[in-house]
Amino acid sequence: MIIQLTNNISSNALHVLEKKLNDYAYKANLVNTKSEKYLVCIGKTPIDIRVFGVLEGVDDIFRIKDDYKLVSRQWKLNHSVITLNNGAKIGNGHFQIMAGPCSIESESQIESIVQHLVENNVKIMRGGVFKPRTSPYSFRGLGIEGLKLFYAHCKANNIAIITEVMEMAQIEEMFPFVDIFQVGARNSQNYNLLEALGEIDKPILLKRGISGTIEDLLYSAEYIFSKGNEQLMLCERGIRTYETAYRNTFDINAIVMLKDKTHLPVIADPSHGIGIRKYVPQIALASKIAGADGVIFEIHPRPEEAKSDAQQTLSFAESENLILKLNKLIINQY
Amino acid sequence: MIIQLTNNISSNALHVLEKKLNDYAYKANLVNTKSEKYLVCIGKTPIDIRVFGVLEGVDDIFRIKDDYKLVSRQWKLNHSVITLNNGAKIGNGHFQIMAGPCSIESESQIESIVQHLVENNVKIMRGGVFKPRTSPYSFRGLGIEGLKLFYAHCKANNIAIITEVMEMAQIEEMFPFVDIFQVGARNSQNYNLLEALGEIDKPILLKRGISGTIEDLLYSAEYIFSKGNEQLMLCERGIRTYETAYRNTFDINAIVMLKDKTHLPVIADPSHGIGIRKYVPQIALASKIAGADGVIFEIHPRPEEAKSDAQQTLSFAESENLILKLNKLIINQY
Amino acid sequence: MIIQLTNNISSNALHVLEKKLNDYAYKANLVNTKSEKYLVCIGKTPIDIRVFGVLEGVDDIFRIKDDYKLVSRQWKLNHSVITLNNGAKIGNGHFQIMAGPCSIESESQIESIVQHLVENNVKIMRGGVFKPRTSPYSFRGLGIEGLKLFYAHCKANNIAIITEVMEMAQIEEMFPFVDIFQVGARNSQNYNLLEALGEIDKPILLKRGISGTIEDLLYSAEYIFSKGNEQLMLCERGIRTYETAYRNTFDINAIVMLKDKTHLPVIADPSHGIGIRKYVPQIALASKIAGADGVIFEIHPRPEEAKSDAQQTLSFAESENLILKLNKLIINQY
Amino acid sequence: MIIQLTNNISSNALHVLEKKLNDYAYKANLVNTKSEKYLVCIGKTPIDIRVFGVLEGVDDIFRIKDDYKLVSRQWKLNHSVITLNNGAKIGNGHFQIMAGPCSIESESQIESIVQHLVENNVKIMRGGVFKPRTSPYSFRGLGIEGLKLFYAHCKANNIAIITEVMEMAQIEEMFPFVDIFQVGARNSQNYNLLEALGEIDKPILLKRGISGTIEDLLYSAEYIFSKGNEQLMLCERGIRTYETAYRNTFDINAIVMLKDKTHLPVIADPSHGIGIRKYVPQIALASKIAGADGVIFEIHPRPEEAKSDAQQTLSFAESENLILKLNKLIINQY
Repeated sequence: MIIQLTNNISSNALHVLEKKLNDYAYKANLVNTKSEKYLVCIGKTPIDIRVFGVLEGVDDIFRIKDDYKLVSRQWKLNHSVITLNNGAKIGNGHFQIMAGPCSIESESQIESIVQHLVENNVKIMRGGVFKPRTSPYSFRGLGIEGLKLFYAHCKANNIAIITEVMEMAQIEEMFPFVDIFQVGARNSQNYNLLEALGEIDKPILLKRGISGTIEDLLYSAEYIFSKGNEQLMLCERGIRTYETAYRNTFDINAIVMLKDKTHLPVIADPSHGIGIRKYVPQIALASKIAGADGVIFEIHPRPEEAKSDAQQTLSFAESENLILKLNKLIINQY
Repeated sequence: MIIQLTNNISSNALHVLEKKLNDYAYKANLVNTKSEKYLVCIGKTPIDIRVFGVLEGVDDIFRIKDDYKLVSRQWKLNHSVITLNNGAKIGNGHFQIMAGPCSIESESQIESIVQHLVENNVKIMRGGVFKPRTSPYSFRGLGIEGLKLFYAHCKANNIAIITEVMEMAQIEEMFPFVDIFQVGARNSQNYNLLEALGEIDKPILLKRGISGTIEDLLYSAEYIFSKGNEQLMLCERGIRTYETAYRNTFDINAIVMLKDKTHLPVIADPSHGIGIRKYVPQIALASKIAGADGVIFEIHPRPEEAKSDAQQTLSFAESENLILKLNKLIINQY
Repeated sequence: MIIQLTNNISSNALHVLEKKLNDYAYKANLVNTKSEKYLVCIGKTPIDIRVFGVLEGVDDIFRIKDDYKLVSRQWKLNHSVITLNNGAKIGNGHFQIMAGPCSIESESQIESIVQHLVENNVKIMRGGVFKPRTSPYSFRGLGIEGLKLFYAHCKANNIAIITEVMEMAQIEEMFPFVDIFQVGARNSQNYNLLEALGEIDKPILLKRGISGTIEDLLYSAEYIFSKGNEQLMLCERGIRTYETAYRNTFDINAIVMLKDKTHLPVIADPSHGIGIRKYVPQIALASKIAGADGVIFEIHPRPEEAKSDAQQTLSFAESENLILKLNKLIINQY
Repeated sequence: MIIQLTNNISSNALHVLEKKLNDYAYKANLVNTKSEKYLVCIGKTPIDIRVFGVLEGVDDIFRIKDDYKLVSRQWKLNHSVITLNNGAKIGNGHFQIMAGPCSIESESQIESIVQHLVENNVKIMRGGVFKPRTSPYSFRGLGIEGLKLFYAHCKANNIAIITEVMEMAQIEEMFPFVDIFQVGARNSQNYNLLEALGEIDKPILLKRGISGTIEDLLYSAEYIFSKGNEQLMLCERGIRTYETAYRNTFDINAIVMLKDKTHLPVIADPSHGIGIRKYVPQIALASKIAGADGVIFEIHPRPEEAKSDAQQTLSFAESENLILKLNKLIINQY
């Protein structure tokens, strides 16, 4: 059950409400988003909502059968929209392309990719500066200095930045330069990080865990939302299965089901989802047909020289071709 | 290596050829399809193909690096086409819809579905009469009498029949009434059945195993082809993963990769692939965008009363809507 | 519900009973084992068993909540024992070692292995003559002639034979030479084969499917038992998971749970379960501690020359060492 | 390649060494453990180690083919031993039992469990105070105050504490009260946390990820070791597979392989590994036979009232019985 509070609810009225919930053995979690106040109420006793509806400070009451609450479409039937600072919108009919390198490597690399995005009217650039790598001896990104460089070029071209944050201690220094914080698959259930991201005012893209379930992902999103940040997107990036013919098994079912279960935008990552360069475009297109609100894929001026993920990274020619097809598919969408 | 033989090769010339292959430690497998003769040669010694090219009875020689040979696109770059007796074509640009009930249940059920297919210009009807069921106590289909009934109504309406064969002993009695023999997921590596189907002159649809790899599937197809039957389709029907939110995880990657690795038509089964009625259409559409040559899905006049697979079976209204969308997607295809 | 019938029940009494079950919307499946008669009754209506208990020909009635019935320990609390023609017993405290090559290759190979088994007091020899191979071009075994050779040497030394049957058409010719018919992982849900094996009077070892669930395996066993053959063992041989460090992931949980859920003997196959020679012994020993009633593993006079499964096959020295440890573990068992 | 340095190597000698490595395109990672100094050298050029062996400050040089280096048994053939402050040793023949509740709940709960451990001569108590929970609304542990309570009772009884740390910011406040820091499955690839734990002087138990590979786990261990902390244990706790009959699939293969691949102690967690109370003991025993250096399992004075993991938690009677069996198995070990 979610109780929407009036924004000016008195602390006394809130106290009365919480006390009454306790009487029914319900635990109340107060959620303050940028514009709203909610009580997420967890309990098992059957309850007559009219008892609460008449109380001071109560605006509306929603019953939610799903175990996750704030991210459920049982609560918000309409699909949420996220608006970035550069005006780009994601969700509820707004489809966005996010492209860029696996890792930010150099100023010239940034420049050439920014130019490619500008030419193709892409509004969001991806690029890692803190890279989680399986081996401690692999290249781990350029760090905060790389991010500042990344920012300078994107800012000048009105392109928004999405980049991965690995640890709550990094949030503050990254904050001024980031438009969307990405949580990677390995940190999909790093709850301390999720809650820290719930307390900031900036959009989050949450990737599904390496073998995360749909439910795991929705609960992880609930961690963020319950701390007040509702600018939240989910990302399907392939799951770990027995099949070794591709890097991961892209779970197209997840796109379809998530769009039904949550009001949050759903983004597809075909690069990690199949991990083989020549197959990426078809997965991107299929994701859009299945209902995705955006795609995020890896590009590089010279894919074969990329410091990471070379085998799944598109060249500019391949990228341009894919963008054209994705845009055309918008027109013919049903 | 595949050696294409002249059709009139003498038994003596064949003997000379096999002897020479043995000299190089190659094993030769003679394959007689309806119209061609091949030797599939398995060995490891580096070989100068000119030594064989000059021999009597040799038409052409193909090197194939893939471990499967006859089904590889390294051999046949062009996509194969299958033509059914009613004129329907599958593959190489010909997209076909196959729809029908999980199980054939009654004459009235057949009649109403045939009528639905006719109205929607669908040329192939699916329907099980021998049903593999997890429990021995479940309904197992109407058997050969059900098939005859099925046949009577389809024949009268120029609709081709696809139905599952579970055991080589069934092939002969089913043969006159079947247009496409389906091998189910549980029998995907039943090699005796596959070889028996390789010896008949009728199209085969081979389903991927419950947790079959891409390679397993191509090898199983090779079993059929190597016995001479090249009228062969592969079917992605979802794989078994850790995710329990859906019945299976539809592997869209498989569609894309199979279309690249083999010349055989690839069919998508979204009904089993996700197993939830309302999500079936989006998976069907995504499959087509990803490159599938056809889809096979379950329909029933009253899905909630179906004797099996009720939860994943479309109503006629849902089916009609999906068919319209699939057909429209043909026009806008790239 | 299982109704145990008196062995001399009249056909009239049986008819009355089935009619009454139908009145309650129960479906009755008559099972004739070598020594007993049962009705396995499937239905959902709550039922007062006294109504049936008083009928003629009814000996006893068992309620079984599990969906599988005859193989459930809810029916038979005591663990079943299988006795082979050479006197070897399996189950309920009788632990048996089954060892031998992946494939029967030659008379000298058989001879040396038989001698090894005799020296180590092993009573059951495994060895494939019909081999299911992923590729149609691989060695597929010596067939029925190999089996006859296999039989001659084992018979002379009082060793029982376990070997795989792939297809119901093979049963009859194999029957005189086989002590235990093995159903391989790929045929674990080949229901026609299972039912055919349910109609013979010879022990069956049923392997778990490549990604079969515990429930799948128990239902497949139910297929055999429901046709009357209760001389039945289950075999855990590793499952297909995302982990590529070993051939399969041996599921030790399955040993523990199967011993709890079914009265049938449970055998461990550590050779396929991990697929790496030097690790096989520890998995075998762990299986025994976990409750297995036997182990089946691969040995060869010269493992590196084995025609199949070389990398998981033990030498005689390794085999002898493992047998000693397994036997010692019997003494210290709890 | 690992270069063991003399402890008193001059900064100049180190500089010379690093420069020479760079000449060969090797990257050198300096590792300072409590007692030793190493350079872990990553590169691909074939190298004549004598060129380095003669340099000042070089004590020894080890070639390691494995991609992980410091945790590989190619480097340290002898199994490592960890010694806790209370004298308990783990590894290389020292088997330890760690038992306790999923969550620390109250002082009386701690008291009764400590007493149980004392009576059974168990030296290490587990218990969570920071609990990663799938839902943000679930009980998340008593936090640092709970840990202090936990510490007071264990300290008084000479019992060591193992408890989970979720975030690097928690390390400092937890440090005085913890004997072994546990990294949970969800944080198994939280590299910032791993590196922070590599910089402290306290033993770490690193759990395998929910679907982590053997290689992932060894690399995550390498993250810790490469920052200087060699007091490190690995823990197999079951993996996520398609099987839903148990919570996780305990991977006994992992125990066997890890003992072969790494010199670090390997601990089994049968509670999470199967997740069903009555089956836990057999998995614990099988793990010991397979080579585990210890087991960690969940106990509670009243398992059915436990705030988390109730279904997999042993009662005191069950725990005592298991401890007796585990100890007896030590005597009969081979």
